[in-house]
Amino acid sequence: PLSFAERLRARERMIGYWTQLPVPAVQERIARHGYDYVCFDAQHGFHDYHAVLNGMIGIEAGAALAGSACGGMVRVAENSIAVIGQALDAGARGVIVPLINTAEEAKAAVAACRYPSGGGMRSYGPMRAGLRSGPETAVMNVEVACIVMIETRQGLANVEEIVATPGIDGLYIGPMDLMLALGGSTINDPSKAEDFEGALARILAAAKNAGVAAGIHTMAGDIAAKRLNQGFTFASVSSDLNHLDKAAAEHLKTARLALVS
Amino acid sequence: PLSFAERLRARERMIGYWTQLPVPAVQERIARHGYDYVCFDAQHGFHDYHAVLNGMIGIEAGAALAGSACGGMVRVAENSIAVIGQALDAGARGVIVPLINTAEEAKAAVAACRYPSGGGMRSYGPMRAGLRSGPETAVMNVEVACIVMIETRQGLANVEEIVATPGIDGLYIGPMDLMLALGGSTINDPSKAEDFEGALARILAAAKNAGVAAGIHTMAGDIAAKRLNQGFTFASVSSDLNHLDKAAAEHLKTARLALVS
Amino acid sequence: PLSFAERLRARERMIGYWTQLPVPAVQERIARHGYDYVCFDAQHGFHDYHAVLNGMIGIEAGAALAGSACGGMVRVAENSIAVIGQALDAGARGVIVPLINTAEEAKAAVAACRYPSGGGMRSYGPMRAGLRSGPETAVMNVEVACIVMIETRQGLANVEEIVATPGIDGLYIGPMDLMLALGGSTINDPSKAEDFEGALARILAAAKNAGVAAGIHTMAGDIAAKRLNQGFTFASVSSDLNHLDKAAAEHLKTARLALVS
Amino acid sequence: PLSFAERLRARERMIGYWTQLPVPAVQERIARHGYDYVCFDAQHGFHDYHAVLNGMIGIEAGAALAGSACGGMVRVAENSIAVIGQALDAGARGVIVPLINTAEEAKAAVAACRYPSGGGMRSYGPMRAGLRSGPETAVMNVEVACIVMIETRQGLANVEEIVATPGIDGLYIGPMDLMLALGGSTINDPSKAEDFEGALARILAAAKNAGVAAGIHTMAGDIAAKRLNQGFTFASVSSDLNHLDKAAAEHLKTARLALVS
Amino acid sequence: PLSFAERLRARERMIGYWTQLPVPAVQERIARHGYDYVCFDAQHGFHDYHAVLNGMIGIEAGAALAGSACGGMVRVAENSIAVIGQALDAGARGVIVPLINTAEEAKAAVAACRYPSGGGMRSYGPMRAGLRSGPETAVMNVEVACIVMIETRQGLANVEEIVATPGIDGLYIGPMDLMLALGGSTINDPSKAEDFEGALARILAAAKNAGVAAGIHTMAGDIAAKRLNQGFTFASVSSDLNHLDKAAAEHLKTARLALVS
Amino acid sequence: PLSFAERLRARERMIGYWTQLPVPAVQERIARHGYDYVCFDAQHGFHDYHAVLNGMIGIEAGAALAGSACGGMVRVAENSIAVIGQALDAGARGVIVPLINTAEEAKAAVAACRYPSGGGMRSYGPMRAGLRSGPETAVMNVEVACIVMIETRQGLANVEEIVATPGIDGLYIGPMDLMLALGGSTINDPSKAEDFEGALARILAAAKNAGVAAGIHTMAGDIAAKRLNQGFTFASVSSDLNHLDKAAAEHLKTARLALVS
Ligand SMILES: [Mg+2]
Ligand SMILES: [Mg+2]
Ligand SMILES: [Mg+2]
Ligand SMILES: [Mg+2]
Ligand SMILES: [Mg+2]
Ligand SMILES: [Mg+2]
Repeated sequence: PLSFAERLRARERMIGYWTQLPVPAVQERIARHGYDYVCFDAQHGFHDYHAVLNGMIGIEAGAALAGSACGGMVRVAENSIAVIGQALDAGARGVIVPLINTAEEAKAAVAACRYPSGGGMRSYGPMRAGLRSGPETAVMNVEVACIVMIETRQGLANVEEIVATPGIDGLYIGPMDLMLALGGSTINDPSKAEDFEGALARILAAAKNAGVAAGIHTMAGDIAAKRLNQGFTFASVSSDLNHLDKAAAEHLKTARLALVS
Repeated sequence: PLSFAERLRARERMIGYWTQLPVPAVQERIARHGYDYVCFDAQHGFHDYHAVLNGMIGIEAGAALAGSACGGMVRVAENSIAVIGQALDAGARGVIVPLINTAEEAKAAVAACRYPSGGGMRSYGPMRAGLRSGPETAVMNVEVACIVMIETRQGLANVEEIVATPGIDGLYIGPMDLMLALGGSTINDPSKAEDFEGALARILAAAKNAGVAAGIHTMAGDIAAKRLNQGFTFASVSSDLNHLDKAAAEHLKTARLALVS
Repeated sequence: PLSFAERLRARERMIGYWTQLPVPAVQERIARHGYDYVCFDAQHGFHDYHAVLNGMIGIEAGAALAGSACGGMVRVAENSIAVIGQALDAGARGVIVPLINTAEEAKAAVAACRYPSGGGMRSYGPMRAGLRSGPETAVMNVEVACIVMIETRQGLANVEEIVATPGIDGLYIGPMDLMLALGGSTINDPSKAEDFEGALARILAAAKNAGVAAGIHTMAGDIAAKRLNQGFTFASVSSDLNHLDKAAAEHLKTARLALVS
Repeated sequence: PLSFAERLRARERMIGYWTQLPVPAVQERIARHGYDYVCFDAQHGFHDYHAVLNGMIGIEAGAALAGSACGGMVRVAENSIAVIGQALDAGARGVIVPLINTAEEAKAAVAACRYPSGGGMRSYGPMRAGLRSGPETAVMNVEVACIVMIETRQGLANVEEIVATPGIDGLYIGPMDLMLALGGSTINDPSKAEDFEGALARILAAAKNAGVAAGIHTMAGDIAAKRLNQGFTFASVSSDLNHLDKAAAEHLKTARLALVS
Repeated sequence: PLSFAERLRARERMIGYWTQLPVPAVQERIARHGYDYVCFDAQHGFHDYHAVLNGMIGIEAGAALAGSACGGMVRVAENSIAVIGQALDAGARGVIVPLINTAEEAKAAVAACRYPSGGGMRSYGPMRAGLRSGPETAVMNVEVACIVMIETRQGLANVEEIVATPGIDGLYIGPMDLMLALGGSTINDPSKAEDFEGALARILAAAKNAGVAAGIHTMAGDIAAKRLNQGFTFASVSSDLNHLDKAAAEHLKTARLALVS
Repeated sequence: PLSFAERLRARERMIGYWTQLPVPAVQERIARHGYDYVCFDAQHGFHDYHAVLNGMIGIEAGAALAGSACGGMVRVAENSIAVIGQALDAGARGVIVPLINTAEEAKAAVAACRYPSGGGMRSYGPMRAGLRSGPETAVMNVEVACIVMIETRQGLANVEEIVATPGIDGLYIGPMDLMLALGGSTINDPSKAEDFEGALARILAAAKNAGVAAGIHTMAGDIAAKRLNQGFTFASVSSDLNHLDKAAAEHLKTARLALVS
């Protein structure tokens, strides 16, 4: 079967889940549901390096339980060769690099993901990843997806150039940051709704023309489906922290409403 | 205003939440919703001592944010003077002690909760709790609730004796263990439903007659309300881990169903 | 295929590894080599509860990679219903309970491993284990092995009674403690060698007569094989900490010897 | 009441404490004494990301106990958009950015602290901070203080330019590094005392002229007061680690001296 | 030179420090000041097992720096063979066992500290301690001090019997618990001062008559000296947490008082 | 005696060990064997900041036990003033900076290692290191070794310029990355063996001519010796993780082969 990165490149439709809780047993649970990928939010979530390292093991265990493949990904905190290298050594099948503004920055992200055999600058030492990928750097270059986020005004302006960077495997939209970049005050700011959808369409088209994957962040399964139906090739549902918070609020509300005084 | 333990003893109706994730920022979030209490599951949840210690701080922070009081509790792993002492030193306003079978065991639980001034054997050193309770042991004796679980066949048989133990502030039903004790194969085993509700009624009556609180574990807010309406004085909704797991499963299902092929 | 506990009960020959390092990525590596079981040493190793919980996930991930089953076990720190319960909830397929002296103690160990449906006192809440075992307590009772250690003078004297305790799935010899119990000053004390082998023979015979598994701790693979050839049904090789320590010493020695001055 | 950042900008006099110990219960204790702010030293202290995240919760809990506001701050390890973003997402009311040499660097620090609505590049995801600030980025821009350290020769030379950077809320002096930059061999090098006080006067004047806060690091409360009396608007007392170390040394000395032989 | 346990048994006068912070670099700092021992408070402090294990390494490093011996001790959470065994395996040179009420309990504490060669039940596996003690159990039996706390009414009543238990190396007074046991409301309750000093004299005499060490907990160096001058052979100063808390409070007070308005 | 950095600069022959496991008790064990240095792999190993901080204490404790000096080093994740500063504050006697391509990058690495008194930009705050080095920055500048890695095509091309950078104390070869840079597919790619040895000779000569240390990474003690015999002045044996993994594999193989069916 195809690896996660190969499926992504083939623009297969994929649904993922976003995790912000530093608890490997949580990642194991999520992965066992059969998501195509689970992504650690190492930018805004509560993860440190050990949370990613151990949680990635949770994803493997959960995926094995489900009898499915599940690509562990990391939305890294920054576009840095060290940080991206650690995510990949920990076993990430892909990284989502935030705040990409230019083709130059995209090129740096790609270089961080590939060994010299693939034209990059990744340093060798896949202490966890190597268990599954084996030692061949050519194989590892192919099995790792490099995805860049379009979520700034500058990034949107340069999206066609960015996506043309050799080695980019996908674009990923951070709707909140993008909305803020467009001048919106909230994710659903009606005054910017049109601009926002226009920006999405432009990014979607750029990805399609370049033949790379197009992904987007969403807050719920139905929205993820809506975006996939609209042409996006992968969509994330977000997140364990948000969902438990919402559940805790709702159960209290339900209980209080149902109390007979 | 009354403290948590005083409200419990006054048989005020209270709704709580059960937490199994070792993430203080999760406990802070939950507490801010306004639950009357949040209880760490240190028996079956993923907590160790530091998770309880730091998460208890999260509860204080969340409660302050909500402008409400929220009683941090611990369902301890065992009926031990050391383990109960550590939960209380960490700031627990109450402990829920599992698997109580006899009045003797209940007596030991009470002794672990009170200093000699209250007839107990608690050792002095409230390194975190003392910040709020002050140094007077008589005050601390009063501010701490001792709740025992009725969830075994033997405990059920002895419930009237157990509840008569001086210093017991409440009974708490673990429905799953109780159902298993009654011979049920699952929590909803129809063949045991009548026995189960009978056992609940007996425990409820025992608590009421003794003038102590009667609590029960539930999986959702509407069930908690149902139990409170039925006469229970406190009910827990369970849990962050279960709720996020369910949410992750449902969002995937929703997304897949909504995909247009 | 048979589960780990079923294989153990069937007295299949099994080789395990002993782990003392609190690093889930280490357990993943070890499990992928294809050991029949990997056992956390929670008595003398460097593990705390999170090390066992997260490391157990490492074992699942490593076993999946190897395409083999690998039973995660825990040598618990003490014969306690709380401690054994936490190991099992974390996903242990078996526990090895140290320092068993009497049939009464063996009975308590068994009770800690089984739900009431199996005659025991285990409390329900398999927050991690349930992902694989499902919710049926009858199934979980069968899938969990209860192994007791014979390593004291009293335990040796009572071994036939101990092994006759219903629910005991295996005996396990701690050679060092046993040797000390016999008056030896080290594991290889020649003055006690005969007594030691005699004790082993007695324990081995007791297990065989009772139809339960007979296991032993060893320091190396060749000794494990020797013991299995001798009639033991499972043997552990010990341990990651010892092996890395030895390797570090040897590489330095080798390097110094090979230096040309 | 004014927020911490507003008080800082209003050049109110504030006294803070510096924390280097990764123990949330320590931060809770300190904050309850009523300090105007408590600052995590994430450059030279023993903190990692989880220490800051959980310790920030400790500050909220301690402040609530004191019935006071207490601004949690972070002296970040470097001037990086990712690192500053994580401190702010964790709930920091301000960051102190070390080793600022130029106005350009100051501008980058400001950009890291503000969302696009405030002209900056901060990425959205205030997973903890949002509980108190709400979702409006305009509000968050105002509630966060951006303070830069003047502690290098180059920074001193450029201090007037640096302080003129729009969005800078305060200057902060690191006396030790500044003294070393001036050629001193220790913090109290008498040969550089005059130069040092001259540098302080220059920085103080620059802050005053620009209408921003002027802060300084000190080792004790009386020195903090002296600096505030001299015109500084905020001063930190440093630190839990230093104070406990000193106390441990002094108690031993006292005890030995008082021993009657 | 004599080991820590040998010095203790020889009733040499020793001054120790009490540590409650789970930070190995703190223990290293404290030990380097030259204390005769540093004791982890695993009953009321913020330590878990890893804090003790890693902090014990800090003590060795600090002692080496000081060029002194410094005995790492653990005041364990309970009188349990498992818990005492883990403290000793982690390298403790002595344990202080709380809440000892009877000679029977004292006997159990001793058994937990000695291998069978010393008449005890300690299990072999000194994974850290063995680096320094070597493998001989007879040596380890001698190098480990077993100290029991007299701090309950019952313990005081039985102190002569308790101290007569073979293998007890010292008595240790917990003044707060003892004062509470005597009916005091605080450590300095004047109405119980005489009773308290009487109890101390009785315990001191019992230790002296039995030829074992007599220790006491104090809050400051001068009190420790006073107690040693009075005949106690060892005294602890308590603690890093208390001292930093006090320092933080005092520096704020000093600063505020010195502010010129 | 000479410090580690002085011995390195004097081109004394030294043998080190590479550690990738975040377990301080492992570093203590390794250091006690008498290695000249132990190096934390913070680029590809499983270390985070606390692992380095606490593990460095382990090295001190182990070295004291061995009665030897043992230089704790850190192969940092990136060439950053913040990251290098934290390693040195934690007590590193040297840093190995990866992926150095140019003299400019080497100059930045040196600046990160020295205080202004040594022409660098290190910020003052040696919270752990200062315990041993004392407060004099001139001393600390001398006691810290700055080693840069030559492991890229560009770094090799610039090696003579890099080594000429004032303040560089040594070159270190990462054979795997270097081999990949040369186009090799594995570390032993026969088609590149000649190129590889040629590159080594060039680097070795460059170091010798510059009078600085020349080091190399190896997988075993005999290879380390071979490289030292060849002229390298220091060589690392790698690593605890690899060695335990290999041992676990071999013991299983040995056991299976020795089984009599
Ligand atoms: Mg974003
Ligand atoms: Mg239960
Ligand atoms: Mg044993
Ligand atoms: Mg500074
Ligand atoms: Mg006490
Ligand atoms: Mg390399």
